[in-house]
Amino acid sequence: MRFYNRAVDPRPVGVFDSGVGGLTVLHECLVTMPHEDFVYLGDHARLPYGPRPLDEIRGFAREIGAFLERLGVKLVVVACNTATSAALPQLQEELRVPVIGVIAPEAHAAVQATRNRRVGLMATEGTVAASRYAELVHALDAGIEFFPLACPELVPLIEADELDSERIDAAVRGYAAPLKRAGVDTVILGCTHYPLVQPTLQRVFGRSTTLVFSAVETAREVAETLAKKGFEQSPDREGDYRFLTTGDPASFRVMGKRFLQLPIREVEHVTLAELALA
Amino acid sequence: MRFYNRAVDPRPVGVFDSGVGGLTVLHECLVTMPHEDFVYLGDHARLPYGPRPLDEIRGFAREIGAFLERLGVKLVVVACNTATSAALPQLQEELRVPVIGVIAPEAHAAVQATRNRRVGLMATEGTVAASRYAELVHALDAGIEFFPLACPELVPLIEADELDSERIDAAVRGYAAPLKRAGVDTVILGCTHYPLVQPTLQRVFGRSTTLVFSAVETAREVAETLAKKGFEQSPDREGDYRFLTTGDPASFRVMGKRFLQLPIREVEHVTLAELALA
Repeated sequence: MRFYNRAVDPRPVGVFDSGVGGLTVLHECLVTMPHEDFVYLGDHARLPYGPRPLDEIRGFAREIGAFLERLGVKLVVVACNTATSAALPQLQEELRVPVIGVIAPEAHAAVQATRNRRVGLMATEGTVAASRYAELVHALDAGIEFFPLACPELVPLIEADELDSERIDAAVRGYAAPLKRAGVDTVILGCTHYPLVQPTLQRVFGRSTTLVFSAVETAREVAETLAKKGFEQSPDREGDYRFLTTGDPASFRVMGKRFLQLPIREVEHVTLAELALA
Repeated sequence: MRFYNRAVDPRPVGVFDSGVGGLTVLHECLVTMPHEDFVYLGDHARLPYGPRPLDEIRGFAREIGAFLERLGVKLVVVACNTATSAALPQLQEELRVPVIGVIAPEAHAAVQATRNRRVGLMATEGTVAASRYAELVHALDAGIEFFPLACPELVPLIEADELDSERIDAAVRGYAAPLKRAGVDTVILGCTHYPLVQPTLQRVFGRSTTLVFSAVETAREVAETLAKKGFEQSPDREGDYRFLTTGDPASFRVMGKRFLQLPIREVEHVTLAELALA
């Protein structure tokens, strides 16, 4: 017997980052929403965003957001802490489709999880300086003691593929030490690269510390949002995913596999001129 | 065969309001967390909070929060929009146990639900003037068009038990009209009294409008928070609930039944002097 289909929304979800870090967010989306289609754009031609002025990052994010909207996505995920800090409110004001960043979902999860209300943050220097995590954590619970820590060595080590090296172990232990001394029971991992060192983090912090990853919490927020808006695809199909880069497709594939942990087939090249088209 | 019990947290959840409105929040808590114990305090001796200066409301809330903490609750729910607006951050800073208010859970739910990103708010004049809903909605989605509307007639009509009267129908239609003209697809019901007129609201706004109630969203936030913190009771027991009032227990029982929609047995009297004990 065939039943009538309920209304479905066939549009894909757009996800973007300056590079491959956002693929950890896409990974969680693909695992929790296997029935949805996704299109991922990596702005490799202009990476890294971190050292650039906020205005410039905002300009890049606006171009990419408008490009994804022209492609026809139903929701945009800013899978990048730097771009979320710099550009989320402006993207939300300019785009017609909803835009979800990586910071608010993590802040909410950390407030829910902490028992002793002492919360740490490990992130890049830019994310710590922008202090958006602190603002959102305190908007939800003004009584939380917040311990932000810039971890500048981690991203270069992770990108150099030193995942099981002594060096990354030592770096993680070094960064964890002051947070453990501060007595935090919950740590926000505020960088999309950090899921690649999750096993080391989990061993170093121990079972009594809750680790909150942007990838997991952002995927949960996307799934809840699609469900509540009635923007979901049919649950019995297998979705598709597709990659675009402003840089070199071949190196995206090589580097991306480690972050996505799922096959990366074709990667399409998008020129900066195509991105910038109104 | 008996299995070993996992760790449970036997402490009750504390819920307070100036009067009986917060019982709609307790109702949702009792329905979604039947295994938890609750203690509800209504500050009837000093009701209504609405017209009082913010500093005075803050002082009352601090007394009640400290009293509930002394009783031994594991979490405090501020089941009152006025007290949440006036005192939530200070309570969170002062109490050791976590404190959840009624505003943030609703703001989050409304942002998730809206499809056209036009969101209305129906609330008392004080809540609209405090603009905490607008701040939290825009912290999550800066692109939402927000339409707050003060509805001063609704609480008196609901407290006068005019639930199926022509007057309440006319009042709801009158307030709904400008929000419908504004094209909102989601309305935050920012007052704990409004669940009592839910059927009328649902008919007047129609199926295409999502109504977000503080009682439902706050209970969900409490349940998620207890689960994530590992503060839950054993799921196979039936919890207990208990009432305290600074006012007259008999009139609490009469008025409260309509708001709780569950039996109210004994109501204990607490003097303001007992509340104020450090």
